[in-house]
Amino acid sequence: MEDSHGMDKDERIEGSKNELLDELKEFLGMPSVSARAGDEGSFRGCAEWVLSKLEEAGAEARLMETDGHPVVYAEIGAGDSTLLSYGHYDVQPPEPLELWESDPFVPEVRDGVLFARGVADDKGDVMARIQALRLYTQEHGPLPFKLKFLIEGEEEVGSPSLPAFVRQNEELLSADACLWEGSMKDDAGRPMIFCGTKGMLYIELRARGASHDLHSMYGGIAPNPAWRLVQALRTIKDENGEITLDGLEELVSPPSKEDLEAIEKILFNETALRASWGVDSFDRGLTGREALKEMLLRPTANIAGIESGYTGPGSKTIVPSEAFVKMDFRLVAGQSPGPVLDLLREHLARRGFSDVEVVDLHGVEAAKTPVDSPLVRTAVDTWREVGASEAVVYPTIGGSGPTSLVATELGIPTIMTGAVANVESRIHAPNESARLDDYFESIGYFARFFERFAN
Amino acid sequence: MEDSHGMDKDERIEGSKNELLDELKEFLGMPSVSARAGDEGSFRGCAEWVLSKLEEAGAEARLMETDGHPVVYAEIGAGDSTLLSYGHYDVQPPEPLELWESDPFVPEVRDGVLFARGVADDKGDVMARIQALRLYTQEHGPLPFKLKFLIEGEEEVGSPSLPAFVRQNEELLSADACLWEGSMKDDAGRPMIFCGTKGMLYIELRARGASHDLHSMYGGIAPNPAWRLVQALRTIKDENGEITLDGLEELVSPPSKEDLEAIEKILFNETALRASWGVDSFDRGLTGREALKEMLLRPTANIAGIESGYTGPGSKTIVPSEAFVKMDFRLVAGQSPGPVLDLLREHLARRGFSDVEVVDLHGVEAAKTPVDSPLVRTAVDTWREVGASEAVVYPTIGGSGPTSLVATELGIPTIMTGAVANVESRIHAPNESARLDDYFESIGYFARFFERFAN
Repeated sequence: MEDSHGMDKDERIEGSKNELLDELKEFLGMPSVSARAGDEGSFRGCAEWVLSKLEEAGAEARLMETDGHPVVYAEIGAGDSTLLSYGHYDVQPPEPLELWESDPFVPEVRDGVLFARGVADDKGDVMARIQALRLYTQEHGPLPFKLKFLIEGEEEVGSPSLPAFVRQNEELLSADACLWEGSMKDDAGRPMIFCGTKGMLYIELRARGASHDLHSMYGGIAPNPAWRLVQALRTIKDENGEITLDGLEELVSPPSKEDLEAIEKILFNETALRASWGVDSFDRGLTGREALKEMLLRPTANIAGIESGYTGPGSKTIVPSEAFVKMDFRLVAGQSPGPVLDLLREHLARRGFSDVEVVDLHGVEAAKTPVDSPLVRTAVDTWREVGASEAVVYPTIGGSGPTSLVATELGIPTIMTGAVANVESRIHAPNESARLDDYFESIGYFARFFERFAN
Repeated sequence: MEDSHGMDKDERIEGSKNELLDELKEFLGMPSVSARAGDEGSFRGCAEWVLSKLEEAGAEARLMETDGHPVVYAEIGAGDSTLLSYGHYDVQPPEPLELWESDPFVPEVRDGVLFARGVADDKGDVMARIQALRLYTQEHGPLPFKLKFLIEGEEEVGSPSLPAFVRQNEELLSADACLWEGSMKDDAGRPMIFCGTKGMLYIELRARGASHDLHSMYGGIAPNPAWRLVQALRTIKDENGEITLDGLEELVSPPSKEDLEAIEKILFNETALRASWGVDSFDRGLTGREALKEMLLRPTANIAGIESGYTGPGSKTIVPSEAFVKMDFRLVAGQSPGPVLDLLREHLARRGFSDVEVVDLHGVEAAKTPVDSPLVRTAVDTWREVGASEAVVYPTIGGSGPTSLVATELGIPTIMTGAVANVESRIHAPNESARLDDYFESIGYFARFFERFAN
């Protein structure tokens, strides 16, 4: 019965690929870059477009206002159980533009791969779920369970409005399970299922020198804010690259036995990962299982950007007046962003860096759902059914998101499953891409998942 | 006789201030930024304009080609002695533009102060000397000594063509003394006379990570070039800000007894200097004579600029693929840029940073003329004559220039004297300025200096 339904759906997808793709391209053509100030009108237009697509699929949808960009909320179906689907319609900034081979907001297919900002994170995933729902309802009518969509517009700037939204709409969002965004195949083409996310603290360190740039003849006596940042940063990692932030290690909750077992089952193709990055070795020479555990189970102290002084062509001999560094600390269970921010401020003050301003840009809690939960089993079984390679279960993912709002605060088992992106998708980077085959497979997967969830 | 000449000239200046100022403004309106590639045509136009001004003053002038921007060369007068005047018609980039209160290339007078890129470094100085010459020749006819002008167009990018030019035109440039660019009053309004310059090595350190920016979920294992630079930089200065570049100290030639005596006579208003910068203390808490000696007698390792990753508004969570830092090392007598570059490369290689590329952008030798030379006495006596405060003699200056080509290679006693700029002139920075009174005084000074030099 399910097999035949599945087959029908695959045929339906096969017969309407052009229309499905055109619809995705239309979505990708909207430059919904949440890190950019202003441009509210066109941003709202993107939200309304998503809403219209949910309505076409039969859902009752509405825009819900926040202090920032609106949330698209929708409901469809009725039954004993409820599934919440989370995604986002905003995207990362496309810069540096000169590294894109085609316009980031003019989707282009090259050799079966679709290039556009947001295709892998997260518009492809959002669109695949809506199209799967439409295929289901066109064939079967209303869902025999309640499906709720929460599609926000600020994920790429740390979801500043989402905590209040979730807390104010706890009843509306109540569910038995949640499919979070994050839709990925590994380098061997196996769907990845993630059961948790890292937390994150995103900050800027700012140092100031003279009130204006000085001629560098004064380089021996003028305060140099770029050097000041280097001096502050050297206290955060030692000369071997190990994090030395006072008290950070003490906050780490050790991973569970089941988590460690799941990690042991992950086939980690480190050679392919390094090749996709074009590097010969990982940071600090990490290899194999050691590198995988570092990525999934350990906090980070990443420099995402740094700038000071003259950075144009040629030479300009100045002592800069300002310097800043943008850093994200990825946090594991036990490390909340608030306390880590306090640790950082105390750490710097203790070493005489009270002049270095610590700007709190945002924080996200870590989240975890047990790897042996029924939701994870449904996801694994659905992948087995659609004929894909065996899915690989990850207890956590190196990335972050506001997953903890749902997984921890609302207590809803939450996972990421889907297959739109892959390890070469260049998420957050120029030439972001997704394979068309994976995209269409994901539509079929979600349709099957809805069937399984109903039973 | 000299006094009456001088008085005539001061009256002449008094009566033609508007014309003199308009001529300077026309010069300042030409955006001759040598750090910018291209735009050769308008650059040549600036050189031709300078040439025409020299011709108006009675000199035989010509453009002399180099591999870069042309040199303006001129000669006038005849006699037993020869004076060479060096200046440059190029300027520093005006960036950051948003910090200028008026257009850097639309000169504006506010409260007796003229604001424009290049007014203090070095167009004001160049123009004052040409106008002084014109005043002299209009009144007295040809000079009774030979005056040579060498005005180049690449000083702000390290004078890459000047070494070859000077070496190929050794005979043409031969002189008994040289007035170098550098025209400055101290914070008490006293003219400063500089008898030497620091050398400089300007480099970029470049680090590379993955072939593209990565999602910072990989922050724990991806090579991060920004962190790599921090790790390299921490080996160049210790945690107290002291330079720790292997072997640099061993190259320093100790200053002479006369130099040290001259430094003891300098009145160093450190409070005013800090106030002009808007800072409470110098780097490393240096104060008084200690700070002055650091500035004049010690090498520096300055970060002039650094950039990596995302530096726009909001937060972008990436591991950057590239990072670079621009550094200038100001060098004292004994430290040639070539050997210091070798030291730097060896220093980094010895510590495992062979992956960090060291890009040699340019080098300049240090230069020194004895503080008790006849040329210095002439400059001091001329200032006394024009009624300015006692001039202050500096054995060296914190800044650099290709002074060594003339002072060392050609063996010509070389000093800097003039009074166009002051400690608030913001040389190389936004809102560069010069006081109109100082400018007109400098014209009178140079006219008197020519008279003294003739006798």
